[in-house]
Amino acid sequence: MAIQNRKIILRSRPEGEAGLDNFELLTEPLPPAGPEQVLIRHHYLSLDPYMRRRMDLKKNYAPPHPVGEVMLGGTVGEVLESRHPDFPPGTFVVGRGGWQEYSIVPAADASQDLRKVDADKVPLSYHLGALGMPGLTAWVGLEKICQPRSGETLVVSAASGAVGSAVIALAKSMQVRVVGIAGGPEKCNYAVTALGCDTCVDYKQYSDTASLTEALRAQCPAGVDSLFENVGGYVMDSVMSQMNAFGRIAVCGMISGYDGEPAPMRDPSAILWSRLRVEGFIVGENKALWDVGFAKLRELVVAGRLRPRESISTGIESAPEAFLGMLRGKNLGKQLVKLA
Amino acid sequence: MAIQNRKIILRSRPEGEAGLDNFELLTEPLPPAGPEQVLIRHHYLSLDPYMRRRMDLKKNYAPPHPVGEVMLGGTVGEVLESRHPDFPPGTFVVGRGGWQEYSIVPAADASQDLRKVDADKVPLSYHLGALGMPGLTAWVGLEKICQPRSGETLVVSAASGAVGSAVIALAKSMQVRVVGIAGGPEKCNYAVTALGCDTCVDYKQYSDTASLTEALRAQCPAGVDSLFENVGGYVMDSVMSQMNAFGRIAVCGMISGYDGEPAPMRDPSAILWSRLRVEGFIVGENKALWDVGFAKLRELVVAGRLRPRESISTGIESAPEAFLGMLRGKNLGKQLVKLA
Repeated sequence: MAIQNRKIILRSRPEGEAGLDNFELLTEPLPPAGPEQVLIRHHYLSLDPYMRRRMDLKKNYAPPHPVGEVMLGGTVGEVLESRHPDFPPGTFVVGRGGWQEYSIVPAADASQDLRKVDADKVPLSYHLGALGMPGLTAWVGLEKICQPRSGETLVVSAASGAVGSAVIALAKSMQVRVVGIAGGPEKCNYAVTALGCDTCVDYKQYSDTASLTEALRAQCPAGVDSLFENVGGYVMDSVMSQMNAFGRIAVCGMISGYDGEPAPMRDPSAILWSRLRVEGFIVGENKALWDVGFAKLRELVVAGRLRPRESISTGIESAPEAFLGMLRGKNLGKQLVKLA
Repeated sequence: MAIQNRKIILRSRPEGEAGLDNFELLTEPLPPAGPEQVLIRHHYLSLDPYMRRRMDLKKNYAPPHPVGEVMLGGTVGEVLESRHPDFPPGTFVVGRGGWQEYSIVPAADASQDLRKVDADKVPLSYHLGALGMPGLTAWVGLEKICQPRSGETLVVSAASGAVGSAVIALAKSMQVRVVGIAGGPEKCNYAVTALGCDTCVDYKQYSDTASLTEALRAQCPAGVDSLFENVGGYVMDSVMSQMNAFGRIAVCGMISGYDGEPAPMRDPSAILWSRLRVEGFIVGENKALWDVGFAKLRELVVAGRLRPRESISTGIESAPEAFLGMLRGKNLGKQLVKLA
């Protein structure tokens, strides 16, 4: 009897804020794996901010996600059936399985990025967070753009998120003073006590750019040398005005503008006055940095210096609500959906 | 009998737009040159957009200009009296003489940047424009940041200005397709016919970002690979949305926001979607590039491929009005004041 696969498709594109009605849950029987293919049972699905932008027709680094197709997303799971010798049944793999319980993929196709992972040394879910794409994203942004030097001050926004938490742990291992920005006392407390962030500013306590700027200034008496930006909008504005000469800004995400109108930059002339370098990047275009990054991240996790927090919802049917909550900052740390 | 020197001081800081009442003309007798000093009679004073920002207390790459002191500015002139053997009377020099008819400066002080120039091979005034700071600024921004490759498309705003005109000539010598943006048919015509710009868009024909964006898109069918930005605001916005992946933006000036409120950037997330590098720079911090830049610029001027246009007012008393006019785009090419 065929396995019944439950999956969530993009039903329609959002107009403004995304909502539950943009998604639809379907059930369909799975075919057997074809030649060179493997059938994977997903244990966890990764939910990430970038997915929101892919729901729109707006310019992106990848084509818009097609309406009617299963939502895209990283997954970690176990090979159930295999027609490829490198991935025997029982192998645990990270891949791009999407918002569904199972996937059947051509194992040798490089575009699938199928990668074997260990299932015993660290929790399986870590391969979607601290030891996966978000952790590597932190590494690439730091190594390629922020390039923080010992004694400098680095600011990271969305500091308690999957990327932000890895930024903190990595930057602290480089003897950098790290100032986080996060929403609410629980997130700030996690950034400081579990990750070693020197201090973390709760942006929800400040209603405008001016007051948030003042709060940050008090924590950055020597100015800011580099910024790892995940948020954009007025959070970014509050940092830009206090960047030191020749500061670097890694633009990793701008979640504040994903779910509606773009969030403007209030005064881009700071780029000139402080001779800043502001650079966007995506992790998939920097694979040359991955091996060293994976090794550094694993070292920090094993040493207890990068202690990932996870927000986990259960069942594929919970994915849309968990995703929308994440866009509004309801999660703490890596947002996952447990599927098996 | 002592020489009477007429000079213009910063009388007060502007609140919002600068006006004539922020300046004051004074006359005072000059002392004789002291040890190691030279007395220079200025032939031309350079007026440049950066001076506007220095009138404010806002953040800058240099301290605010002090109220009550002679306005800062580049000058070219002739040594009248000398107490330094390297600069005998009759020597023509470029320096930082400020808004006045004469200056007395310590000749050997590196901070004065006193530099001998020839007075016969090219018009003296060129040493403040195409063969001076604006021309070098164009070279540094192209070499260090835009790094245009043969066949690529480069956009330059304020294309007919002192910097923009040098950007066009230099970029055309690199086999780059150059699309200018300027205000009015005369400026656009100059950019195309005298400088070889492939095409020039008159932004004054378009009332908003969307229509200017469409006009530019028609001229940049293969997108934009690099942008040399002198203006900021909606002119910059209209280019950013059509930058190609891995595009480079040299932030040289943002004149649209100098004379009042900052001009925001409408959608900075383009930096992420197109993985842009956006970098601010000033010419004085890139002296290692000067020698090659001077040589290239001179070659282009001699070959008739960089034909500078100048807007010249006469007499030191005309400087404030000429300066305010330049901020509103009334000049064509390099704005100068003729003093002798």
